Amino acid sequence: MDVLMGVGRAGLKSGEKPDILVILLPQSCKASFLFTKNHFKSASVLYSQKVFKGTVRAMVINSGNANCGVGREGLLHAELMAKKVAEGLDVEEEEVLVFSTGIIGKPLPIDKVLTAIDRACDILEPLDLKRASEVMSTTDSFPKYDFVKRDKLEVFGFAKGAGMIHPNMGTMLAFVFTNGDIKEGVIEKLHKDINERTFNSISVDGCMSTNDSFGLISLGLIKEDLQKISDAVEEVSLSLARKIIQDGEGATRTIKVVVKNASIQLKARLIAQAIAVSNLVKTAVFGRDPNWGRIVAAAGSTPFPIDQFKLKVYIGNHLLYDGKVHPKALENAKKYMEESQEIEINLDLMEGRESWIYYSSDLTYDYIKINAEYTT
Amino acid sequence: MDVLMGVGRAGLKSGEKPDILVILLPQSCKASFLFTKNHFKSASVLYSQKVFKGTVRAMVINSGNANCGVGREGLLHAELMAKKVAEGLDVEEEEVLVFSTGIIGKPLPIDKVLTAIDRACDILEPLDLKRASEVMSTTDSFPKYDFVKRDKLEVFGFAKGAGMIHPNMGTMLAFVFTNGDIKEGVIEKLHKDINERTFNSISVDGCMSTNDSFGLISLGLIKEDLQKISDAVEEVSLSLARKIIQDGEGATRTIKVVVKNASIQLKARLIAQAIAVSNLVKTAVFGRDPNWGRIVAAAGSTPFPIDQFKLKVYIGNHLLYDGKVHPKALENAKKYMEESQEIEINLDLMEGRESWIYYSSDLTYDYIKINAEYTT
Repeated sequence: MDVLMGVGRAGLKSGEKPDILVILLPQSCKASFLFTKNHFKSASVLYSQKVFKGTVRAMVINSGNANCGVGREGLLHAELMAKKVAEGLDVEEEEVLVFSTGIIGKPLPIDKVLTAIDRACDILEPLDLKRASEVMSTTDSFPKYDFVKRDKLEVFGFAKGAGMIHPNMGTMLAFVFTNGDIKEGVIEKLHKDINERTFNSISVDGCMSTNDSFGLISLGLIKEDLQKISDAVEEVSLSLARKIIQDGEGATRTIKVVVKNASIQLKARLIAQAIAVSNLVKTAVFGRDPNWGRIVAAAGSTPFPIDQFKLKVYIGNHLLYDGKVHPKALENAKKYMEESQEIEINLDLMEGRESWIYYSSDLTYDYIKINAEYTT
Repeated sequence: MDVLMGVGRAGLKSGEKPDILVILLPQSCKASFLFTKNHFKSASVLYSQKVFKGTVRAMVINSGNANCGVGREGLLHAELMAKKVAEGLDVEEEEVLVFSTGIIGKPLPIDKVLTAIDRACDILEPLDLKRASEVMSTTDSFPKYDFVKRDKLEVFGFAKGAGMIHPNMGTMLAFVFTNGDIKEGVIEKLHKDINERTFNSISVDGCMSTNDSFGLISLGLIKEDLQKISDAVEEVSLSLARKIIQDGEGATRTIKVVVKNASIQLKARLIAQAIAVSNLVKTAVFGRDPNWGRIVAAAGSTPFPIDQFKLKVYIGNHLLYDGKVHPKALENAKKYMEESQEIEINLDLMEGRESWIYYSSDLTYDYIKINAEYTT
């Protein structure tokens, strides 16, 4: 009763790389799906949003083409893909979801895609997380997957994404599975909460994608404490989200922004996000420059007031500002930035008890190179 | 009865460049000032906001140091600067405003600053717009000034700014003067409206500054039709705003985003802003890549719904998408991007009559270079 996968190639990506992934679940499974909030959605997202009714049996994912910005033709293509999977795997068409990632504005070569789906359905094998992530990859430089096992509870998942990463949700696809049983009505809430703290708290470039999707699928094989399931799902989700950030286009450092002791959580979150997405903070990290001035400038840019005479700013463990400057700490902070792969920026608002953590990556020459030379 | 200026050097900038500018108005003038909405404000902004009561007689501007993030000491420094100008020019201290721009987190060498102010007050000359802009400059590569003359009406102004440019308002200082008389109570509204369409509709890097200030000063020398004054003030303000964008850090192209036929103006504005600040759109412009997919992805990222099957996207005059793709237009659009200094992106929402224009610049290797190597 395992999860199975099939792989095909429709020629959507350069080289000989496979670009079609079909996933077959052991039975109809309770699931929750979160899609991009972008109003210019991929036709695949529009299709999957429309057909999903709380359970899923199979999924088809193509990489190399977003099936987006191609007019109404894209909706027909998504439907044809679902139909082909339903036929090939002998499952209900309404329980097949369709996902796409890649370039915007090019119609799918649908004949080739359908032929590749056909073949993928013919050769099923047990789900290989690494290979599944590789098939979905576009500008990714490494596959993203993880799993945890706690007694009998298993949670595993795979993802793709490296650019156009920003809440709601970035060009990323992520699928997390658990053998733990999660009730209908519970899975949606649990999924949404975990998404806020994981995939919705990362940013590579502040750009919201047209195609993002994050699925949580309960295989329902064992009964387990809900909190235990939730913790394990969050652990895998956060691990996948952080891998996406580590693979941020052109990134040389990951940035972990911790805003703490805020009066309310939304404030901590918006301030953490403002710091994490600031181009000036991100270029400073690339320059290994402990430029806390840019950090406080970003922190002050949200609608929430901050008290500049009370707050404290740390880079790593190095206190750089607490209502007065500490020029001697700058050198140690710089050394920390040169030596660490993950740069922690810590802002203590000194006013309450709420906190939020947000991840991003530095902004580099290679980010420009990748995105200025990626052609339509 | 002209506007006078004095220049000094306190050693805040490298080289022999002057960094202190004192402006003396012919008398106490009605004025309106708009300051950054950043909650981590420069002490100079905090000081000027506190003392300004609707009229101004003199201003002192230092460049090279933001007088920001230095704790309460900065407030004292701003006050000392105002006092020194009041003494040197024999004007009321409450009618002297203080502005600073430059690096954050370094206390001003206040003795040197006061000595330089002293000297600047001693050698006054008629306001030279070009030189005034040069004295205020930090990372600017050219001075920003303009003037218009319509019959007897004169409007003239100068500005600085090249990075950390984003509404509310970017690290920019701008001062616009008119000999036209504008009534108290009227000047504030007129100023605010013009600011929205000019300095608040430009972005270099999406980063909000701690120090931005935009002053509109009515010398009150002639009576003139208010609409005529307003038009001329807007013309000069927009000219200064566009010069700031042309000088965007590392920029090779300016980007003019026109969103038209929206149902409400706020929608046109937020969508124009989302496109203008998108790192992916900005890198595409640097790559001369007519990547309209990134344009529509940015357009869809605001809270306002858009109809992807109805809207039209143009780059220059080249229609790239109108519910279907036009692959043949891509080559001409690319040629246009290679040959034009200002790239116009046109999004027609096809739903109403409201429009907005927003300016930004492309994101380049040099932006990274300037900001990764600018050290604290």
